[in-house]
Amino acid sequence: MTLASTMPGAEFPRLGSEGLEFRIHAPGAHQVKLQLPGDSLGSGSVPFSPEPDGFWHAVISDPAVGFHYYQVEIDALTTNDPGSRTYSGYGRSVSGVEVPDPLEPFELRDVPHGELRSLWFRSTVTRSWRELWVWTPPGYDDDIDRHYPVLYLQHGSGEDETSWSRQGRAGIIMDNLLADGAARPTLVVMGSGYAAAPPSTPLSAVDSAMIIDGLQQLLADDVIATVDRQYRTITDRTHRALAGLSMGGRQALAIGLRRPDLFGWLGGLSPAIWQRGTTDAVWSVEPTWIEDAVRAAGGVRPQQVFLSAGTLEERFVTAVDELAGSLAAAGIDHKSYLSPGTAHEWTTWRRSLTELAPRLFR
Amino acid sequence: MTLASTMPGAEFPRLGSEGLEFRIHAPGAHQVKLQLPGDSLGSGSVPFSPEPDGFWHAVISDPAVGFHYYQVEIDALTTNDPGSRTYSGYGRSVSGVEVPDPLEPFELRDVPHGELRSLWFRSTVTRSWRELWVWTPPGYDDDIDRHYPVLYLQHGSGEDETSWSRQGRAGIIMDNLLADGAARPTLVVMGSGYAAAPPSTPLSAVDSAMIIDGLQQLLADDVIATVDRQYRTITDRTHRALAGLSMGGRQALAIGLRRPDLFGWLGGLSPAIWQRGTTDAVWSVEPTWIEDAVRAAGGVRPQQVFLSAGTLEERFVTAVDELAGSLAAAGIDHKSYLSPGTAHEWTTWRRSLTELAPRLFR
Repeated sequence: MTLASTMPGAEFPRLGSEGLEFRIHAPGAHQVKLQLPGDSLGSGSVPFSPEPDGFWHAVISDPAVGFHYYQVEIDALTTNDPGSRTYSGYGRSVSGVEVPDPLEPFELRDVPHGELRSLWFRSTVTRSWRELWVWTPPGYDDDIDRHYPVLYLQHGSGEDETSWSRQGRAGIIMDNLLADGAARPTLVVMGSGYAAAPPSTPLSAVDSAMIIDGLQQLLADDVIATVDRQYRTITDRTHRALAGLSMGGRQALAIGLRRPDLFGWLGGLSPAIWQRGTTDAVWSVEPTWIEDAVRAAGGVRPQQVFLSAGTLEERFVTAVDELAGSLAAAGIDHKSYLSPGTAHEWTTWRRSLTELAPRLFR
Repeated sequence: MTLASTMPGAEFPRLGSEGLEFRIHAPGAHQVKLQLPGDSLGSGSVPFSPEPDGFWHAVISDPAVGFHYYQVEIDALTTNDPGSRTYSGYGRSVSGVEVPDPLEPFELRDVPHGELRSLWFRSTVTRSWRELWVWTPPGYDDDIDRHYPVLYLQHGSGEDETSWSRQGRAGIIMDNLLADGAARPTLVVMGSGYAAAPPSTPLSAVDSAMIIDGLQQLLADDVIATVDRQYRTITDRTHRALAGLSMGGRQALAIGLRRPDLFGWLGGLSPAIWQRGTTDAVWSVEPTWIEDAVRAAGGVRPQQVFLSAGTLEERFVTAVDELAGSLAAAGIDHKSYLSPGTAHEWTTWRRSLTELAPRLFR
């Protein structure tokens, strides 16, 4: 079976009777390994077996559903699989594989489809041209008197503005939710979360101010204004949400709690929460983090905070628990969701978006 | 200087004082080479020099402007450069480098920008979901009574529906032309040209029927109807153009000449013209090709045919000359353009679009 992540015309990767099969042409190589992403697909590496004519073959039986990054190690070199599409992750363009499951909410269905739109804007903050990806729901162009709420979605470390639509399938998920009448028609805005720190910097070495303050300024000064000017949006806080995954989850919670005048709804998906001022980041919620933010916001609170993690990513399940406790202490309404059997990976975040979107703007 | 094609956060490739610099981390490698694309950037390969800590460095002094595909050869293995973005070309996801030149018509300027939109449609021809990329001009959403002509742009062999916007910068070129008042506001539709033959098949081995008939059916049965339904188009032949590059140039000319009821304006950019029925493709225009097409179309002719090539790609300059002769003999109005100092590469096609768009729909 052909995969959506396989290059058109390529035979591998594919789903066969043995499982998820990979084939690489590396004549003269001594050793070829499949580097697993450390998610529900597996950790470490899987050896390829040599075949005639310089081909190498590897199989993962019973592969976990959804999108997984991967790489191929050929002798000392780590590289991409030429048979697969590439995705912005790990701070570069890396191979990915998409294991379909018709029961998941992120498969393409025969329902009305929205449009994914890319536009340029000139940032006054970074003093550069930036690309913004905006998903508009089906029928957006038909009724031009209608205005929409907006969900701002932030990607994770090493990813970019294309990740939520490509790896995350945000548009397909929204299409499916809308077809089921499960969510309110919403614009989804996906921009780069890097406004100060470059994506090649390891997250643990990044001061939260570099990650958070730059994006906060970018959203407040450029992005929201661009979106509200270019699209038919409802421009008050009760119709604007900010959510993100991992690094983007930290950004969404921090920015949203400090600027409740901008965002009424927040989502932290596997939020990468660490304490400030430590050289080795401590992956724990700083005791006064939320309290301080609410105080900085003059006591204004978001309408609801959505938190989620995959059951296999312990650190983030803990973060969600700690955050839920802090939010409760600060008197902030919140909901938690755990994705069964998934780790720090896109299936967690796709399912999280499926849980989050129906709760927004109600 | 940072390049638009370099991954955000990566230091290389970059433009330095020595020229276009590449750096690869390949500890333990014996030999590293930069594989040139065989265009105006150069042919063959450039050796990398070893540097401390497993790094390798290569420079191209005075690099040719525009977009160039490239690969890196590490010992026996050909792979991508992790520092660079990847682009659909060569039938897979391959590194590319963008050498800017503010004097070229394809650089981002501070002018109003259109939107690039991606939408799904279900093809009745290929029985699959396909993605269509549609560029809408600035202001498209502002005046909803206005209808627009449509230019259908086809990519080359081994490329896909993303190539004209990413490698080709079609939207940026249209933005610049519109800002200068040089072209008429137009929708630009970019879909995959593969409807029957897979992109991994070498072009010389592909029967023209596989390349042409499938796309003709796809355009006639699915794509035009989808676009005319979803966008505010002017739906007659005098407001619909079909152009393509290389393989797409052959497709555009063949389909357009056979279906002048659908397309009034045609463009063949470096058109890959070969004769049918030969095992080794003869790169020459079949004597009765155009005559036969016009006869099949009941004598109806396109309003104008645009032809172009780069001065460095001899075979295609010859094809343009031969085609111009055949068109003249068939009584079809045509214009030719030669891009100075460029080969079979995107600078030729970007400049060609800049020449073509102002001639359309007049």
